[in-house]
Amino acid sequence: MKQLINSSGHMRQQLLAGLTYTYNDRLDWQVGTGIVTKKKIAENKVVLISGGGCGHEPAHVGYIGENMLDCAVMGAIFEPPAASEILQAIEKTYNGQGTLLIIKNFEKDLASFLEAEHLAKAKGLFVSHVIVDDDCSIESGTFEKRRRGVAGTVFVHKILGAAAAQGHSLNELHTLGEQLIPRIKTLGVAFSPASPIGIIPQQYQLAEDEMYFGIGIHGEPGYRIETMRSSERIAIELVNKLKQQYEKADLTQAAILINGLGSTPLLELGIFMNDVQQLLDIEDINVVYKRMGNFLTAYNTNGLSLTLLTIKEEKWLTYLNTPTDAFGWK
Amino acid sequence: MKQLINSSGHMRQQLLAGLTYTYNDRLDWQVGTGIVTKKKIAENKVVLISGGGCGHEPAHVGYIGENMLDCAVMGAIFEPPAASEILQAIEKTYNGQGTLLIIKNFEKDLASFLEAEHLAKAKGLFVSHVIVDDDCSIESGTFEKRRRGVAGTVFVHKILGAAAAQGHSLNELHTLGEQLIPRIKTLGVAFSPASPIGIIPQQYQLAEDEMYFGIGIHGEPGYRIETMRSSERIAIELVNKLKQQYEKADLTQAAILINGLGSTPLLELGIFMNDVQQLLDIEDINVVYKRMGNFLTAYNTNGLSLTLLTIKEEKWLTYLNTPTDAFGWK
Repeated sequence: MKQLINSSGHMRQQLLAGLTYTYNDRLDWQVGTGIVTKKKIAENKVVLISGGGCGHEPAHVGYIGENMLDCAVMGAIFEPPAASEILQAIEKTYNGQGTLLIIKNFEKDLASFLEAEHLAKAKGLFVSHVIVDDDCSIESGTFEKRRRGVAGTVFVHKILGAAAAQGHSLNELHTLGEQLIPRIKTLGVAFSPASPIGIIPQQYQLAEDEMYFGIGIHGEPGYRIETMRSSERIAIELVNKLKQQYEKADLTQAAILINGLGSTPLLELGIFMNDVQQLLDIEDINVVYKRMGNFLTAYNTNGLSLTLLTIKEEKWLTYLNTPTDAFGWK
Repeated sequence: MKQLINSSGHMRQQLLAGLTYTYNDRLDWQVGTGIVTKKKIAENKVVLISGGGCGHEPAHVGYIGENMLDCAVMGAIFEPPAASEILQAIEKTYNGQGTLLIIKNFEKDLASFLEAEHLAKAKGLFVSHVIVDDDCSIESGTFEKRRRGVAGTVFVHKILGAAAAQGHSLNELHTLGEQLIPRIKTLGVAFSPASPIGIIPQQYQLAEDEMYFGIGIHGEPGYRIETMRSSERIAIELVNKLKQQYEKADLTQAAILINGLGSTPLLELGIFMNDVQQLLDIEDINVVYKRMGNFLTAYNTNGLSLTLLTIKEEKWLTYLNTPTDAFGWK
């Protein structure tokens, strides 16, 4: 996989410049930082901030907009931003209603975001957080669930974003996040790993006919390497594993997200969606909401993830359907 | 590049099933055919139909919606649909106001669409067409412009789509198309060719450090193979070649489209957008509209195209900005 870049040291700046130039009708970028904000932060609602490393586009800048995020703080490729930048973002967007941080469950992301929250609270600001841990891949050595924060994070952006716009308090949003996140489960598969050559080291290699189930969004290894199979066989593996994460009684109605990991053509996501639909039909799972496309990528990984969200309350569906101008939410 | 498919013989059916399942709130698919239509065809406007081979997703199904297309007719991978299916689509969507076909300039596409137009006219239907030929790549043997219909086609869908919704007649839309199309110019570059292994033969190969300027959207060769360069150097080549297609006086305000060809990460399109912006700034070209993403792909090609449209009339810009629910127009 070749890379269309200039110098690896300036990727964050050049990317954010390009993104915010493209969407300068709705986004502001604080030049020299990783801080991108909505052009106008509403004064009567809780502020929602997310972020992480670059390389996951359109996440998270693409989720800034009406009924979604107010701000995204982006670090270098696959590296979270510094706590000092997150603190700066909290202060810059603070409107007195409180700020909720939506954090993907990775050690480094937690360290940065929680330190920023700590520093902001010490300054007397109301800040809280939710941690998204939707990945249900299993660590092959310990059989422990990896619980990384992956594509399901965009469901959290959308649902909490719409709830915040409805005027819910910081406490209420925190509670909603805690109810929602355990019902979001994601599993990914890669056909070729991300290849940010000269930027970060590759953590695994795959042969010409191999695929890897359960991989992460920064090129982390999965739980099983197998010979490349048909779309249908891959759908069976992912749907079966995801299904096992829920009580049968909870699997009545669900939202699904088929997420391309960066270099998977929409043609193939479309074929995969058809296979997933047939499997969910057989299981009598009523799919009340679906999204397909590149939502939270892993640079140029060829692969995809499937996310299930079981809808416990009708208002979650209402929030999913609330319109937004966030460019990543198409 | 591995392929996430089932059997190559059923790709069109499975893809259209997956796409129309995902967007079943707005799209209808005539099962067994390549015909996808808007759920409700308006009765008081000209019907707009486009199409071509599959493998260009989200084109063209993704452009069916309010203020865009009414119908797309899709063939097998990189093969236009049969004239008989296009005729069926014209008849199925006919509302008495006339039908405009938007055709990409390829020999086989012209043959199918123009035969369908001929057959429909013989049945007394009002049908007309425009041919999009925005590719300004040069044939290396003859130095002739290739004039293939490529990514700029989506500007034609958007502008004619919004104009049709405004109630313009078939003749007026045809005239608008004829004014618009010569002002749309596109040039592409590939870093890795499409690899629909076992589906269609590859027309060129690139070494690990090579790229190819001027390639087509079905894996057709370009005009020059070069050593892979930086994003900035590639932007210079494309912007310079595109600029030369216009009179200097026409290059005052422009719309631009940066189109990923299927497996290019948005991260890299963003970096490239930043380079393009800087070059257009130097040229004093006022960019009044911009789009970036995967709009008209070449299956899993790693590469991109840049499209310029010089805005001759303000209403073109109004049409570009008219909202649509077409899922490909994000």
